[in-house]
Amino acid sequence: MSSALPQPLPHITRLHAYTPGLQPAETGWTKLNTNECPYPPSPRVAEAVMRELGADGASLRLYPNPAGAALRETIAAHHGCGLAAANVCVGNGSDDILNLLIRAYCSAASPLAHTVPSYSLYPVLVAIENGRCEGIPFERDMRLPVEKLAACDAPIIFLTSPNAPTGVGFANADIERILAAYRGLLVVDEAYALFARENAVPLLARHPNLVVVRTLSKAYALAGIRIGYALAHPEIIGVLDRVRDSYNTSRLSQAAAIAAINDRAYYDAVVEKINRTRDHWQAAWSARGWFTYPSQTNFIFTEPKNARGESGPAVAKSVYDWLVAHKILVRYFPSHPLTAGFLRISVGTEAEMALLDNTLQAWLKNA
Amino acid sequence: MSSALPQPLPHITRLHAYTPGLQPAETGWTKLNTNECPYPPSPRVAEAVMRELGADGASLRLYPNPAGAALRETIAAHHGCGLAAANVCVGNGSDDILNLLIRAYCSAASPLAHTVPSYSLYPVLVAIENGRCEGIPFERDMRLPVEKLAACDAPIIFLTSPNAPTGVGFANADIERILAAYRGLLVVDEAYALFARENAVPLLARHPNLVVVRTLSKAYALAGIRIGYALAHPEIIGVLDRVRDSYNTSRLSQAAAIAAINDRAYYDAVVEKINRTRDHWQAAWSARGWFTYPSQTNFIFTEPKNARGESGPAVAKSVYDWLVAHKILVRYFPSHPLTAGFLRISVGTEAEMALLDNTLQAWLKNA
Repeated sequence: MSSALPQPLPHITRLHAYTPGLQPAETGWTKLNTNECPYPPSPRVAEAVMRELGADGASLRLYPNPAGAALRETIAAHHGCGLAAANVCVGNGSDDILNLLIRAYCSAASPLAHTVPSYSLYPVLVAIENGRCEGIPFERDMRLPVEKLAACDAPIIFLTSPNAPTGVGFANADIERILAAYRGLLVVDEAYALFARENAVPLLARHPNLVVVRTLSKAYALAGIRIGYALAHPEIIGVLDRVRDSYNTSRLSQAAAIAAINDRAYYDAVVEKINRTRDHWQAAWSARGWFTYPSQTNFIFTEPKNARGESGPAVAKSVYDWLVAHKILVRYFPSHPLTAGFLRISVGTEAEMALLDNTLQAWLKNA
Repeated sequence: MSSALPQPLPHITRLHAYTPGLQPAETGWTKLNTNECPYPPSPRVAEAVMRELGADGASLRLYPNPAGAALRETIAAHHGCGLAAANVCVGNGSDDILNLLIRAYCSAASPLAHTVPSYSLYPVLVAIENGRCEGIPFERDMRLPVEKLAACDAPIIFLTSPNAPTGVGFANADIERILAAYRGLLVVDEAYALFARENAVPLLARHPNLVVVRTLSKAYALAGIRIGYALAHPEIIGVLDRVRDSYNTSRLSQAAAIAAINDRAYYDAVVEKINRTRDHWQAAWSARGWFTYPSQTNFIFTEPKNARGESGPAVAKSVYDWLVAHKILVRYFPSHPLTAGFLRISVGTEAEMALLDNTLQAWLKNA
């Protein structure tokens, strides 16, 4: 930065910003890189947006309900489990919720613990606050390190469940073993919970130090509207609301989210279809000899093998480049030894997955 | 907070949260309390939202463009003055931009200076970061304290211009006198600039340490979509982008904002109409003997006098309560001696203002 200009705080200058997946502006790409839903949202969403808009968009002149009160009610009723609106905070995407948690609970003296590898945004959000992270490593088997988490002395833990980018789900029994010993705030980041066998929401009633974070960007096919939420004890929700911007979600987004959450039948069918596609290709690539973690998400984390039976970072990179050359985007995470040999492939439509597999088979012949 | 629960950072526990103006859920209120536009947005906004939505809302399944690139281009072209997209950062409302600036430039060791009274959110955002504020006081004449600002040694100054809640505008000549001496970051928060005689955008080309902040919530009649932006040197925009959430604005909001900014003729007419209404009532209340600052915004800051010629906090409070009892909301700021005798009244439609004035005259007879 030019020395003539005022400088930001030193830790901001040193910051390595988060790299989101590519969002190409031009069409023609098969986009299997950011775990978006390959199917449209419930038709009730567009209806709700148009209703909120009215004929001339006049409702937009007014600020949104600052709490998103109707959306909080809808979310609480959707989950049941004894939850009320006071157990819900709504964010501008779940990243907003994660950020609020870090700003309220983390500092240089109060580190955030998180499993590694997991969602790579966490350390960036902590670095922006000049805070400190403690990584709790997974082994190659990606089993939850229950004892280490239970014994953790950081005041807050972020646990991605099911995990990203591996797709591995964790059992509530294991999460409760952590909660039996851990006295800090356990934040279970459940972006992919609708694709999983279990989720931690039923544990909230017994564990006031548990926070569950959800997003509408994945299973709900609403990445474009930026809505996520936290479920927690009302006193923790109160903390988030003190740090939250008063008007952090738009009127149209609140209306869209309410309509989506209320159309449970539509999304049950979408999730079932995606899980079926996922299970099919996961089995196919495993049968091809590619090591593939059992996914409980809408993506597949697989370790490609070339025709000579070799795998590893160079092979994964070669597949990634081959796919980009054929206008297919997937995600490659070279910075950690447990991820560098793998690709993370969002589950697309059946046609997109067939196209992807044809392109992978062509790579196999050419590599 | 219950001692059984994990506690947030001590400065979060001590925090006095920001109080937004009331947003009543029920209808029947005349809402002159949050400086929303009394007229609907450009009809092109609803068209643009519906176009982005498509028939089945399918576009919503995809993440927005992370930079809001098309919106940045539109904003730069709208302002001209040699600005390019690299001079623009888009926020989830201008509060998001203010927050990014504070997180990047303020700390306990690097205080934020701001004039007092001004927008009461600033100290709250600083307190969330456990930072420090320096208040630079106005006198009752509300003239810009140019010398004090020019000599300020805080690394960043927030200047609300035109000021809130007084409505008083500042001359570019005075802002340039500050910039001639001040070497930190001068942030001119221009939420109400479209109602003012001058704005600081033309100064950006000469002053790389100037940031201008705008919102679409006031003149553009789009408080409901949450879009604001910063104009600044590309290196400062780069700092904001490193701290900013990758997907801080929704697809529908980006589309709505582009359509609005491109309909200059519509908004020129809206602003002219609001300014005419404002000038009429400002003159009327001044003629009634109520001290009223000359407003360059879409609100009027006036000091009510009762039939006995008394003014002051008790009188202002009595008018406020009378209006609430008649279902009219305005804003009252009791916490500062320079504001406690006043009411801040958003400029509504001509019918709303006539209703307000009738209700004020009824108070005069009864008080």
